[in-house]
Amino acid sequence: MNRTGSTVFFSRPVCIAGRAAIVGKNESDGPLGRHFDNVIPDALWGEKTFEKCERKLFKTAVKTAVEDAEARMEDIDLLLGGDLLDQIISAGYSARDLKYPFMGLYSACSTYTEALIIAAALADAGFSRRSVSAVSSHFAAAERQYRYPLELGTPKTPLSQNTVTGAAAALLTTENISSPMPVIKCGTIGRVVDAGVTDANNMGAAMAPAAAETVLTHFEDTGTSPSDYDAVITGDLGRFGAEIFDEFLKKAGADIAGRHYDCGEMIFKGCKNEYCGGSGCACGAVVVNAYFLKKLMSGEMERLLFAATGALLSPTSTMQNDSIPAVSHAVVIERI
Amino acid sequence: MNRTGSTVFFSRPVCIAGRAAIVGKNESDGPLGRHFDNVIPDALWGEKTFEKCERKLFKTAVKTAVEDAEARMEDIDLLLGGDLLDQIISAGYSARDLKYPFMGLYSACSTYTEALIIAAALADAGFSRRSVSAVSSHFAAAERQYRYPLELGTPKTPLSQNTVTGAAAALLTTENISSPMPVIKCGTIGRVVDAGVTDANNMGAAMAPAAAETVLTHFEDTGTSPSDYDAVITGDLGRFGAEIFDEFLKKAGADIAGRHYDCGEMIFKGCKNEYCGGSGCACGAVVVNAYFLKKLMSGEMERLLFAATGALLSPTSTMQNDSIPAVSHAVVIERI
Repeated sequence: MNRTGSTVFFSRPVCIAGRAAIVGKNESDGPLGRHFDNVIPDALWGEKTFEKCERKLFKTAVKTAVEDAEARMEDIDLLLGGDLLDQIISAGYSARDLKYPFMGLYSACSTYTEALIIAAALADAGFSRRSVSAVSSHFAAAERQYRYPLELGTPKTPLSQNTVTGAAAALLTTENISSPMPVIKCGTIGRVVDAGVTDANNMGAAMAPAAAETVLTHFEDTGTSPSDYDAVITGDLGRFGAEIFDEFLKKAGADIAGRHYDCGEMIFKGCKNEYCGGSGCACGAVVVNAYFLKKLMSGEMERLLFAATGALLSPTSTMQNDSIPAVSHAVVIERI
Repeated sequence: MNRTGSTVFFSRPVCIAGRAAIVGKNESDGPLGRHFDNVIPDALWGEKTFEKCERKLFKTAVKTAVEDAEARMEDIDLLLGGDLLDQIISAGYSARDLKYPFMGLYSACSTYTEALIIAAALADAGFSRRSVSAVSSHFAAAERQYRYPLELGTPKTPLSQNTVTGAAAALLTTENISSPMPVIKCGTIGRVVDAGVTDANNMGAAMAPAAAETVLTHFEDTGTSPSDYDAVITGDLGRFGAEIFDEFLKKAGADIAGRHYDCGEMIFKGCKNEYCGGSGCACGAVVVNAYFLKKLMSGEMERLLFAATGALLSPTSTMQNDSIPAVSHAVVIERI
């Protein structure tokens, strides 16, 4: 077995041979702006609807990752991914246009790491030569689906987060590896945890316990501790959720002081209308692809633990007064 | 590589050691009624909402599959699956209650075979000892999400299908195999195909080209032809879609006369309000688990090709006048 507890270990170096991180204007105006590959000019990018703009983001991210790997579009044998829209239509319509064998995934904002774990496992076992894992999210499309149409001008609550407009993709392969390259060493598959939070504008509090569960399980399964990682990265807990996460880990005896980075907190730091930061499938994915993988490749960091975080609610479950379950899948990324 | 074209081949016997098929009253009144494990008394099954009833179906299917395999609930190391509701809340809330590491999938009504392919690949490669793949759907929950609340009494169009109320699950393992048992030999990962159909009440026509694409790709990748299978089973094309599928295959030179079974057409055959038959994630899954696997175990059939079929539309894409993309993932099931 290549597995201990909830963690799967890859026997070969599964490389991120190509990557992409595309964002919207607000994201590029934030402190990480200069790191992103591509910035779209406005919320429509020449499309008729926000939803169609999100598809264009998704497809462009896939193509950018393929180019970054110096591969050809026809070399890809599998596309995995998803997004936040009902029935993951951003991924579904993109897969139609890209014509790859496609596995649709839904794990809210932890979809990216779920995709990376499945893609890495399939690559390791010889079921895929070159796959692309991709995710997207779009502020305006998410607002009108989960909350209110922007036209209403509904004020946000202090604990709310802003969905990141963007898309990210990674080309995974075990072939033609030339170092240095980021490799996925193992992945911890998350359990769904529900702390009883019912406020759909307080996702950080809903997701923090799931992130803590996965990260603590990861330490146990792998026999590692926070000091074995240069960065323990959470996807989109936001400022408030990140504090709760730190508290959970401290109580469990895991000291991550100075090592914990939350992509949601980072991406809009100091921006106007920052609230608790960013969220969305693309949030953790673009920050890891653009910022942390760069630090890994430059040698500034050696080993990353990336736990993307997802809140598994829907407008229907919110209307039926259900509390918000959450999940987090984690991957370890090193340099080869 | 354990792969040719879009098809992945498993190197060890990955067994369906336990299975479950639970349905609603209408489904049990149909011609396959006596084959199902369990029938729920009404559309709520003691729950407050149809959505909560669907979760109960999902969880009960998982438990039933575990019992059927004579395993214990704590032996399961992975849950994979999804459903039709926005943000796959049936699967998400069930995963919360079941506490297993969880991978959420969305491939509309082809989610079951997508789950089986991923689960079989992970089992084959030693990433999972015993996983459960599960799906659910619920007529009343689907109607109010995708179409109209039942209270409106909106008449259905002649080409429409009725979402099956039910849930199915399969426990997959490579360990403790005692023959006879159904094994998954290989899986063909589908491409998303869009034939330009825009009528959301005509799913069969939208899905038939995707099913044909996957089944023809499967024949090519495996060097097999229809006569190598006792049954070529499609998930939920319905009466009209099944005709189109047969036509597609005939044009491509694949003669499946007398071998093609469509679960959507079968489940409500001769029922009142039959229309074009059944649909939904549970449709193909319950019919294969309850009816075809029984035929396989009794020796009446030796080799099944099961291509579940999914339409990747959403109410949002329908409102934005998008055509309906579809996908089909296929598995070959034999007896060991």
